[in-house]
Amino acid sequence: MNVSIIAIGDELLIGQVIDTNSGDIAIRLNPMGWRVNDVQVIADNSDDIIRAIDRAFEISNVVITTGGLGPTKDDITKATLCRYFGGELVENKDVLENVKRVIERRGLQMNELTARQAFVPTSCEVIQNQVGTAPIMWFERDGKVLVAMPGVPFETREMLDSAVLPRLFSRFPVDGHIEHRNVMVTGFSESLLAMTIAEWENALPDYLHLAYLPNAGIVRLRIDGHHPDKALLMSEINYQHSQLVKMLGTEHVLADKDIPLEEILLQLLIDKKFTIATAESCTGGNIAHLITSIPGSSEAFKGSVVAYSNEVKHNLLGVSEASLSEFGAVSQQVVEQMAEGACRALNTDCAIATSGIAGPDGGSDKKPVGTVWIAVKTPTRLFSFCHRFPGNRQRVIFRASMASMIMAVEEIRKG
Amino acid sequence: MNVSIIAIGDELLIGQVIDTNSGDIAIRLNPMGWRVNDVQVIADNSDDIIRAIDRAFEISNVVITTGGLGPTKDDITKATLCRYFGGELVENKDVLENVKRVIERRGLQMNELTARQAFVPTSCEVIQNQVGTAPIMWFERDGKVLVAMPGVPFETREMLDSAVLPRLFSRFPVDGHIEHRNVMVTGFSESLLAMTIAEWENALPDYLHLAYLPNAGIVRLRIDGHHPDKALLMSEINYQHSQLVKMLGTEHVLADKDIPLEEILLQLLIDKKFTIATAESCTGGNIAHLITSIPGSSEAFKGSVVAYSNEVKHNLLGVSEASLSEFGAVSQQVVEQMAEGACRALNTDCAIATSGIAGPDGGSDKKPVGTVWIAVKTPTRLFSFCHRFPGNRQRVIFRASMASMIMAVEEIRKG
Repeated sequence: MNVSIIAIGDELLIGQVIDTNSGDIAIRLNPMGWRVNDVQVIADNSDDIIRAIDRAFEISNVVITTGGLGPTKDDITKATLCRYFGGELVENKDVLENVKRVIERRGLQMNELTARQAFVPTSCEVIQNQVGTAPIMWFERDGKVLVAMPGVPFETREMLDSAVLPRLFSRFPVDGHIEHRNVMVTGFSESLLAMTIAEWENALPDYLHLAYLPNAGIVRLRIDGHHPDKALLMSEINYQHSQLVKMLGTEHVLADKDIPLEEILLQLLIDKKFTIATAESCTGGNIAHLITSIPGSSEAFKGSVVAYSNEVKHNLLGVSEASLSEFGAVSQQVVEQMAEGACRALNTDCAIATSGIAGPDGGSDKKPVGTVWIAVKTPTRLFSFCHRFPGNRQRVIFRASMASMIMAVEEIRKG
Repeated sequence: MNVSIIAIGDELLIGQVIDTNSGDIAIRLNPMGWRVNDVQVIADNSDDIIRAIDRAFEISNVVITTGGLGPTKDDITKATLCRYFGGELVENKDVLENVKRVIERRGLQMNELTARQAFVPTSCEVIQNQVGTAPIMWFERDGKVLVAMPGVPFETREMLDSAVLPRLFSRFPVDGHIEHRNVMVTGFSESLLAMTIAEWENALPDYLHLAYLPNAGIVRLRIDGHHPDKALLMSEINYQHSQLVKMLGTEHVLADKDIPLEEILLQLLIDKKFTIATAESCTGGNIAHLITSIPGSSEAFKGSVVAYSNEVKHNLLGVSEASLSEFGAVSQQVVEQMAEGACRALNTDCAIATSGIAGPDGGSDKKPVGTVWIAVKTPTRLFSFCHRFPGNRQRVIFRASMASMIMAVEEIRKG
């Protein structure tokens, strides 16, 4: 089944809010073999909405709109849907009861504006919004369906899962199947990787397609498959996926599924029953931040010393003052002592340490901006490497953080 | 000037990657009085690209595309642009030199695929991509412009600022003068702020317009002015800006210009000749990361202890084991000891400490997910406050980081 999504809201077109609803919808449709043809992001404007719906129905049988359903005057979606599908806006008793229930649960009072939420087009069927006040509206015409959903991301996610998707999937039983497999690869540029696997890629059956998604030292390879015969598709995509993983080898495959690098690292630590700490100079706490963004990270991550000044490197991590003055903070000697000091101070099995020049100032001929020493300590190993990253300060910090975690995964796998 | 954006990439339509480029473009166009009419997110498919460009040119004079320019075979945008604008794909020596330069700076080797980046349509003018290998292509037809940009967000941002926007703004000069003034306000919800300044706002001359941009405890107010007479515009916008700042008062105005909160904090510290450290539990190093993302932060920021485990809170920050067991890690007693411990351990004048429950697990009836204690220590004061933030783990971490820095600015201003 083909779907078009229309995200409605002025705030999306001035860069104030990023549309995450469309991704939330797409990620749920894919496993069912449904395809999102396009997303249109448009303003709270009646003519724009009409034109977007016309365009969407040209290429898709199902249209999902998000947003534009609040009670304030800039939300004109309901009136426009009335104009498009016919009927008139009439107060719906069930919706009014639902709005009252939601408002009361939030400890708020009904007022003229919230009461207006209960007016819906007579041409739609209402799906009660269990977690918000804006009703969800289901329209049908010529065998095609439009579902109008609220713009608040958590309401959209909740109602997709509990009501809208089950109803769509039963209204349009799936034709054919779609499957995806991912491989996270390191140690290759995108183009070198493409050449390395060209023969395999060219021999893929025509219902399997390979996509390359490179970022910060990692190339994510995604195999997309679409075929009427689910058993055949599963068997072939699993076979090709395992062939790809085998061909690239353990030293290049960070993971055989699509998960964040920090989660790969955490899972590895938990599997090995290792704890970890970070000692960060130029990355300024970003590695700790990335690791702790994963729920359950406390199982392996104990903490971090962000040692921005040399004084902190010496006092908290035990880096020798002699090394700091002789080799400078951005040096192999210092970064290795930082890693050892982190294991000692935070009582962990492993540590990641970084020291570098993120810029824009502080570079020199011998150590230009982008120079970053990274050390990883494991129970049996201490390894360090000097990188030179391109880009501005933000980019150097991000690249150094990613490279640190890639190095940690590689070293911890060795023991 | 009217702009349409087309974001190209299969990965955007299966929910694997969120399109942030369109927001980055919109946020830069708005202050110049340019309007984004719509965003179309489409697949790496030639017919879809052609149809999207046709649609975009129907309503806009400028079209910006992002993505679909990598060297692998799933990127067919360049060939499609050739089909649309005519000409043929020919190797461009300057682009080849640029690709070589970028590849070498990354410590990589040129190969057949990266060399393919140098092929560009003869119908375009090339803008060299200083930070990546995919060339930026500028097409003109019937007085309308299409600019094809890469999909990698940092490349898009860099090249928008350094080359694409300056050129667009000079190609389509603004009629009259445009000026902006900003005020960063805290302590108000958007609606309460709107009511507070309604009388002033309603009395603004019709060539000044006020925009509200609320996010995470801060409302950014932007006055946009557009007038043929530059001197008149400057005088009036400066007057209204100073009136607004005066009306809101120092306790609510974080800054009278648009700068990141972490930079406001740093500037205040530098002005007062204070140093600072952070002691972070639930924020996991994010505050340190935000502060160190500002160039020159080492002038005031000495470092951080990310104390994720209680052991680290006790060993490195000196939090008493009795307090940890009696009150729990998420408590006023513990967070205040963390702040004091950070000043002691890192030898600083000030400290920010956080301890909370970011979720999804770990909440209880008394301390639900989103509960965060924040403490700020200055040379003369120790203040702490318990927040309850809505949203998921990422959102709680972000809100807690912002609230911590707002509190730090308020407390440090007091002494």
